[in-house]
Amino acid sequence: MTRPEPRLVKGFRDVFSADVALKRRMVEAVRGVYERYGYVPLETPAVEFVDVLGKHLPESSTPSAGIFAFRNPDLEPGEAGGADEWMSLRYDLTAPLARVAAQYAELPRPFRRYQIGPVWRHEKPGPGRFREFTQFDFDAVGAVSVAADAEVCCVMCDALEALGFARGEYAVRVNNRKVMQGVLEACGMPPGASLDEDARALDVLRAVDKLDRLGEKGVEELLGKGRKDESGAFTPGVGLDAAQIGVVMGFLRSGVGAKRGAVVESIARLMGDSAVGRAGAAELATIHGLLETLGYGDDRVVMDPTIIRGLAYYTGPVFEGVITKRIVDETGQARQFGSVYGGGRYDGLVERFTGTKVPATGASVGVDRMLEAMKLLRPAERPATADVLVLVIEADRLAWYMAMAQKLRAAGLNAEVYFGEGGMRKQVKYADKLGIPFAVVAGGDEMARGVVQIKDMAAGAAAAASGAVQSNEAWRSGQASQREVAEAAVVEELVRLVKR
Amino acid sequence: MTRPEPRLVKGFRDVFSADVALKRRMVEAVRGVYERYGYVPLETPAVEFVDVLGKHLPESSTPSAGIFAFRNPDLEPGEAGGADEWMSLRYDLTAPLARVAAQYAELPRPFRRYQIGPVWRHEKPGPGRFREFTQFDFDAVGAVSVAADAEVCCVMCDALEALGFARGEYAVRVNNRKVMQGVLEACGMPPGASLDEDARALDVLRAVDKLDRLGEKGVEELLGKGRKDESGAFTPGVGLDAAQIGVVMGFLRSGVGAKRGAVVESIARLMGDSAVGRAGAAELATIHGLLETLGYGDDRVVMDPTIIRGLAYYTGPVFEGVITKRIVDETGQARQFGSVYGGGRYDGLVERFTGTKVPATGASVGVDRMLEAMKLLRPAERPATADVLVLVIEADRLAWYMAMAQKLRAAGLNAEVYFGEGGMRKQVKYADKLGIPFAVVAGGDEMARGVVQIKDMAAGAAAAASGAVQSNEAWRSGQASQREVAEAAVVEELVRLVKR
Repeated sequence: MTRPEPRLVKGFRDVFSADVALKRRMVEAVRGVYERYGYVPLETPAVEFVDVLGKHLPESSTPSAGIFAFRNPDLEPGEAGGADEWMSLRYDLTAPLARVAAQYAELPRPFRRYQIGPVWRHEKPGPGRFREFTQFDFDAVGAVSVAADAEVCCVMCDALEALGFARGEYAVRVNNRKVMQGVLEACGMPPGASLDEDARALDVLRAVDKLDRLGEKGVEELLGKGRKDESGAFTPGVGLDAAQIGVVMGFLRSGVGAKRGAVVESIARLMGDSAVGRAGAAELATIHGLLETLGYGDDRVVMDPTIIRGLAYYTGPVFEGVITKRIVDETGQARQFGSVYGGGRYDGLVERFTGTKVPATGASVGVDRMLEAMKLLRPAERPATADVLVLVIEADRLAWYMAMAQKLRAAGLNAEVYFGEGGMRKQVKYADKLGIPFAVVAGGDEMARGVVQIKDMAAGAAAAASGAVQSNEAWRSGQASQREVAEAAVVEELVRLVKR
Repeated sequence: MTRPEPRLVKGFRDVFSADVALKRRMVEAVRGVYERYGYVPLETPAVEFVDVLGKHLPESSTPSAGIFAFRNPDLEPGEAGGADEWMSLRYDLTAPLARVAAQYAELPRPFRRYQIGPVWRHEKPGPGRFREFTQFDFDAVGAVSVAADAEVCCVMCDALEALGFARGEYAVRVNNRKVMQGVLEACGMPPGASLDEDARALDVLRAVDKLDRLGEKGVEELLGKGRKDESGAFTPGVGLDAAQIGVVMGFLRSGVGAKRGAVVESIARLMGDSAVGRAGAAELATIHGLLETLGYGDDRVVMDPTIIRGLAYYTGPVFEGVITKRIVDETGQARQFGSVYGGGRYDGLVERFTGTKVPATGASVGVDRMLEAMKLLRPAERPATADVLVLVIEADRLAWYMAMAQKLRAAGLNAEVYFGEGGMRKQVKYADKLGIPFAVVAGGDEMARGVVQIKDMAAGAAAAASGAVQSNEAWRSGQASQREVAEAAVVEELVRLVKR
């Protein structure tokens, strides 16, 4: 029998102590904000039927493009399962929410829920790009009023601030699918004119979505005849004429450097005769007005006509939360974290099931990307470990060591007894490796004298480095590594040291 | 295009607000205990290679028996993937821990981690039996000392008490695989004698494992010639003779009604010449002694020779946590929750990968089964919702309503603005349905006079039922449903009411 190789599936990873602990603190901070706004928790399964998840409908006999899909294991081999034939790991938390909203007639409306959980995508993994990652969503299903969209912006701001980002270190960017539609109409490309024209309209959005990466010139080329990149590869363009390109680019530039109110006004002017575009501009004006009243100014929420948010299901306002603070990594290199929050209004998701339009709006924070940013921003924290390691000096006195740890726990400390093999040297190394700050050391000699030694691991490392002499004074000031205390006083002393 | 039916996969479920909130409180309580003992958090992926998970190795070309397995989607159709061909959703958190322990040489030893997360089993679902459920494990890998097993018992007790079970309302039951082995040797069935004999030995354990369900007589029949059940179906027996059956049954009965110390002694006596059995009995004696020193008496931890814990990977002490408190459901029916905690020592899991025995011990709480028990034990709690709903009486005054909610949030309350459709009646019904305790009501008239109405939803329901007249006094005492307060005083008044 061969031994299996201990290995992960490509694109998956393990998360260890310090990162799990930081992630949990982040999640609690965001949860507090969601609950403050009255969102309630929901949990849905990891596994759903593929037709329920939608979007990634089977295009071939194995509908696994982009998702982790598998055949219903309740079916016999060869048995036809109809709609129940394929299931999949969920790829987001919005599709399951739409299913829930359609499935339970008894739910309150609006149904405002938050949900945190892993989602899975079968994509090419890369650095910082995993196939399993955590999303933390809040959505209001059945929220008709555009005021709900304004509130989504407030929640995003509050959540980012709860995570420790100050004003000016982040921004929530707002656009509206309807004004994008208005721009297309202003270019003479109304929706539904023909399938070909609709496909071209999507190509316009795709080109605009590349603004960040290609710059204005690149987008202009893609809107026109096409673009040749540095490698010489040619991407055919949408084929708009110069006037049409001018309309699109004018729209994209309308947000640059202007105050929010001015951007809203210039967007409205650019909508011309487009009814849908004017409706979208009016929504942006309402959002702007509400945000002004609530004190969410330009320093937090901006109108940004360049925001597309992919080609997904959004039908109205779209939102994007970004970290604008400069973040450098260990090597001093500036790191871009792009969009950490994304959302918008979608009216069609529940309709897929019921045939009835149900307006909904919300946003989702990418917890893992946020975690990476937080790790670079926060000073290194003590890892999540015990406060005290009780060393096992004489194996036949285990009961004493365990009772000592129990007393420390009763006093509110996290305490661990060393249950591995090896002597004092190995046990001290263990505490060092884990980052456990204090150790209790006692052998038969100490026990007979009614004393124990307390080791301060950090001071021990420093003292070892400096070779300094240790005194009681040095101990009090945290500069000595070891000190003898009466057994009766050890709990009190360790509580003092840990809380220090 | 047909509409998909909004539906769950069989055996999966949605969990709503109140249950998610209760589950989170439970998890936080247990986490606190695990951390108090120095366990640190770990997260592993939902998806692993099937050969890594072990246990459920492919027996046919589709290795999906008992697990949710699927072919590696990175492979082309027909491409041979070798060991990487099949992946699966994890079926527990122990197999991934063994993989982690084998994969990372740099981990501290002992590696003491806790992990919470969903696991998936492709089994026949039933009432209260789901295919996706949450486990919350703690394990110490590389913990050689049997003292670590004693500590596992302490952690289980502390966790059950942190969940609100008092002494006498739960029990941790301990047995040892080695003494079971000793019993088999005393029956003349030493391990490794032949494959047939080893299979028979497993059948003995299987029979003993049914004691709860079949009683002593049923087990005796299964150990002997076989058993016919009520339906007339016959299960062939193991074929032990009367003397052998006497040994096994004597062992099983040795724990009945005796104090823990006496059980340990009688188990030791029953081991005869079996070296492994005597080693197991000595371990139980050590665990007993340590528990006595630490004050974990018979009222919390008992020795129970009947505990088997399945046929899985345990190699030493095994543990089972049960709720002994009588729990009745809504209909007054007593409900059995069986084992809510299970664990033990296993030496072979990391060896599968590395060839080196790594002793490990730990336990796992079944969060969902525990949740069901807690729901019946706890008084119904307020669901997790906003404290206050701000009604939208006049749609053109949305900014006022949102600003009001914002002021309430700034004062520490969870506040929601109604963003759905419908008038006052519908909005009050919404608050009722969600269980939001207070509502703020104000139209243009109130705003002009600088006042608002506060509705007490519970008192409103009571008043509607009794038809009582409302006065300021009735309001103060919580018996009136609605009261006018000055706009400037509304935040303070609601804080008072919510904290009441």
